[in-house]
Amino acid sequence: MSLSIYKFNKNKASELPIYRQLYVHFKQLILNGDLKRDSQIPATRILAAKLELSRNTIKTAIDQLAAEGYVETRRGAGVFVCMNNPEEYFSAEMHDAHVTDPNIVLPRVKIPPDVIKPFVSTKPTNRAFSVGVPDLEAFPITLWRKIYAATLRQPGHQLMGYGDPLGLPELRQEISTYVKTSRGVRCTPEQVLVTTGAQQGLDLISRMLIKPGDLVAIENPGYRGARSTLAMTGAALAPIPMTSAGIDLKSLAALRDVKLVYTTPAHQYPNAAVMPVSERLSLLNWAETAKSWIIEDDYDSEFQFDTRPIPSLQGLSEHNNVIYVGSFSKTLFPALRLGYLVLPEALINDARGVKQSVYGAQPMLEQMVTAKFMNGGHFLTHLKRMRGIYSKKSATLIEALQQNLSQEIRILGGQSGMHLVIVFLDDIDDQKLVIAFNQAGFAATPLSQHYLSNPLNGLVLGFGSASYDEIEAGVQVLKSLIKIAIKPKLLHV
Amino acid sequence: MSLSIYKFNKNKASELPIYRQLYVHFKQLILNGDLKRDSQIPATRILAAKLELSRNTIKTAIDQLAAEGYVETRRGAGVFVCMNNPEEYFSAEMHDAHVTDPNIVLPRVKIPPDVIKPFVSTKPTNRAFSVGVPDLEAFPITLWRKIYAATLRQPGHQLMGYGDPLGLPELRQEISTYVKTSRGVRCTPEQVLVTTGAQQGLDLISRMLIKPGDLVAIENPGYRGARSTLAMTGAALAPIPMTSAGIDLKSLAALRDVKLVYTTPAHQYPNAAVMPVSERLSLLNWAETAKSWIIEDDYDSEFQFDTRPIPSLQGLSEHNNVIYVGSFSKTLFPALRLGYLVLPEALINDARGVKQSVYGAQPMLEQMVTAKFMNGGHFLTHLKRMRGIYSKKSATLIEALQQNLSQEIRILGGQSGMHLVIVFLDDIDDQKLVIAFNQAGFAATPLSQHYLSNPLNGLVLGFGSASYDEIEAGVQVLKSLIKIAIKPKLLHV
Repeated sequence: MSLSIYKFNKNKASELPIYRQLYVHFKQLILNGDLKRDSQIPATRILAAKLELSRNTIKTAIDQLAAEGYVETRRGAGVFVCMNNPEEYFSAEMHDAHVTDPNIVLPRVKIPPDVIKPFVSTKPTNRAFSVGVPDLEAFPITLWRKIYAATLRQPGHQLMGYGDPLGLPELRQEISTYVKTSRGVRCTPEQVLVTTGAQQGLDLISRMLIKPGDLVAIENPGYRGARSTLAMTGAALAPIPMTSAGIDLKSLAALRDVKLVYTTPAHQYPNAAVMPVSERLSLLNWAETAKSWIIEDDYDSEFQFDTRPIPSLQGLSEHNNVIYVGSFSKTLFPALRLGYLVLPEALINDARGVKQSVYGAQPMLEQMVTAKFMNGGHFLTHLKRMRGIYSKKSATLIEALQQNLSQEIRILGGQSGMHLVIVFLDDIDDQKLVIAFNQAGFAATPLSQHYLSNPLNGLVLGFGSASYDEIEAGVQVLKSLIKIAIKPKLLHV
Repeated sequence: MSLSIYKFNKNKASELPIYRQLYVHFKQLILNGDLKRDSQIPATRILAAKLELSRNTIKTAIDQLAAEGYVETRRGAGVFVCMNNPEEYFSAEMHDAHVTDPNIVLPRVKIPPDVIKPFVSTKPTNRAFSVGVPDLEAFPITLWRKIYAATLRQPGHQLMGYGDPLGLPELRQEISTYVKTSRGVRCTPEQVLVTTGAQQGLDLISRMLIKPGDLVAIENPGYRGARSTLAMTGAALAPIPMTSAGIDLKSLAALRDVKLVYTTPAHQYPNAAVMPVSERLSLLNWAETAKSWIIEDDYDSEFQFDTRPIPSLQGLSEHNNVIYVGSFSKTLFPALRLGYLVLPEALINDARGVKQSVYGAQPMLEQMVTAKFMNGGHFLTHLKRMRGIYSKKSATLIEALQQNLSQEIRILGGQSGMHLVIVFLDDIDDQKLVIAFNQAGFAATPLSQHYLSNPLNGLVLGFGSASYDEIEAGVQVLKSLIKIAIKPKLLHV
């Protein structure tokens, strides 16, 4: 038995209570090798006498050592050191920062490059022309805060417990009513599953429907978020060209064994094509014959400016093969993190299990507030108002583009939603242009990055969050940048 | 040209504006086949004269038909019907409810039965003995509401835009400080990834590390949520027996090609074993040699009653192979839906991509409020207070069990956390018992359901949300139910 065990100086100035000081003392002895494995710790009363401490203090320190596995009580014999690997533990204790050899990386799954590839300036920001950001200035924040405050006053246990992973029943009811009346979706509240946004909905449903290697048809150009999610499931992605009437049905029909089609028929992202009813019916017919699932991402359907939106694919379908995806990120605001799926009945049971086991529920408070906002009629009023605002902003942007860049670009869209696309008529590197546009204080997304193959160069311009002044100024900046960007080509002539 | 086109009776009593009535009139003619494909729609001025409507009304109706693909404008010629499949569309229009043949289900992925199998009474409720539900009565809801209200007053754009998918920087900073000082985790804010809870963290990380068919070692018995999540990735699950010192290292070492171990060393769920430091070091050694990842779910580590918690595995590791999983569901409240991962540096880049592309961010407001609560020191105060409360509740439950059921059960745990386990000494069907216990108004989870193989019968009893009276009453009910449950066996003798 090392005598050093009794060399304990209690430090009254220390913030550590005495028992912790004693614990540290013992631990150091064990780690230093002064107290070897299987050596006995003196009895509590002996230590108490020698160290002039209460037996309780000593017992607490030894209990902590035992709990952490440094010592163990052997019945009828006493307390013994049982630490196995002092050197290693000690060396680990000595380092403040993580000791890592960056060269040693254990085997892991290769994440599809599409998922992690840095993407030039597509992270939505609050800058003008950022894609997918609504006009937050126009949001009825005062009313929203009021509903929030009222909801917070509800009894705590209603706000804090575990919720239904399928979603708050009141919110599912409101969503069901909304998609039925406004989007022609055939839906009961039981078919609604609340998600953290379109992205989670896509992920959940593709994990239920797609095995690695399955052929999945996607729009080209298309929504990159969907492409990433589908790539994560291991799907083989088939890019389908877009026509002005939506996804090209002939190209689709030429494929064999398509398991799923992802499409945005209401307002194709990014090219803004609206799929007419006849095309929708043909797509549904094809899917029935081909035994393919359809994911209908009803992107931007709420903001059709001059005409009423076309009823959803899901509402036109007679079969159990369309999954409808919606989100509140554009219609309310992104930080809310709420979206929804409308599931075919045949998938509800599996989806409930996957949602509960893998994703869990959404925050209760957000769901309560959103349900109240919808129930009070504020959601439809808000949509109507925003439709007017976006229509005006779109017209302003189109006019500015036509006046300044009519020779350099072609415009797609502008009749609905919160963004439009310009395609460059000259050979311009859209990624470089976006970087320069960013440096001038504006956002935008390079069109080419939405293509899986055969990219066109252009820009996706969001006008939701831009002010009228910013729209005018941004187009002027764009004009000067484009002039510089096409110069090198002219020099080659 | 069918003459029926002029047989339009406007209905002034209708809620539909005139242009919508006209649109419906035309649509019906097309769908009925009265207006065939390629037949021309009369010019606006003719229709206006004949129908006694403004040209604008007529134009709006026809624009809507065009947008939906019923008609199209042929340059220089006029407007023509272009609808392809009237019969089908019509039949779809006629049904109010979804027409589905439940027998026709398209091929889909077989969800592992573990994920969707109904689980007897494990959905956390607000009843006494529900597992994983904190004492919500003791939560400082008034303070929380105050912080919430203050946060809501911040400018709207700060509350509403897109957030960093890795989490609010202020919250990542607070989490980093907390796990470093309280859990011995080696961590910078950059390594912290905010999730919707432990479940999402597990899912994200297992999708990054596990290919279908990879061998994954899990605790048996163990946390069913982890089992489901890992099963969803297609992992081959190897159940490892539990000893009183945590996961059985000999059984683990006997396996070949383990890609990942999932473990809860702080307070094993459900059996409440605490893994001593020596065992932790052996596990880390094994993992280094075997080239296996470790997921450390630091479940319930915050509520160690008599001794200080043992530092995390992650903090003891010198290698880049431990992923640390934490959650606020037990320490704050479940409806918050916030948790976190501490990632090895080598995984941060991939994880950022997957988080952004597949899961997205968490609600901004919840993150802001939680960061402020932590920054104000309220989190540590709260934990300390709850530790006292749970310690008392645990002692009350143990005493009641020992007084009433000492011959029938063995107790595991009770020195930390919010639950303990009772194992039946007689052969009792724990699932049936739980159903009867539910009917008497109490919750509990059958122990057998936490096993992947060789189940023991017993109950997991959560005492977090139970009042002292409920604890006493519940044990009395349990006593009477157990007496009935073991009767049939006695009759057989």
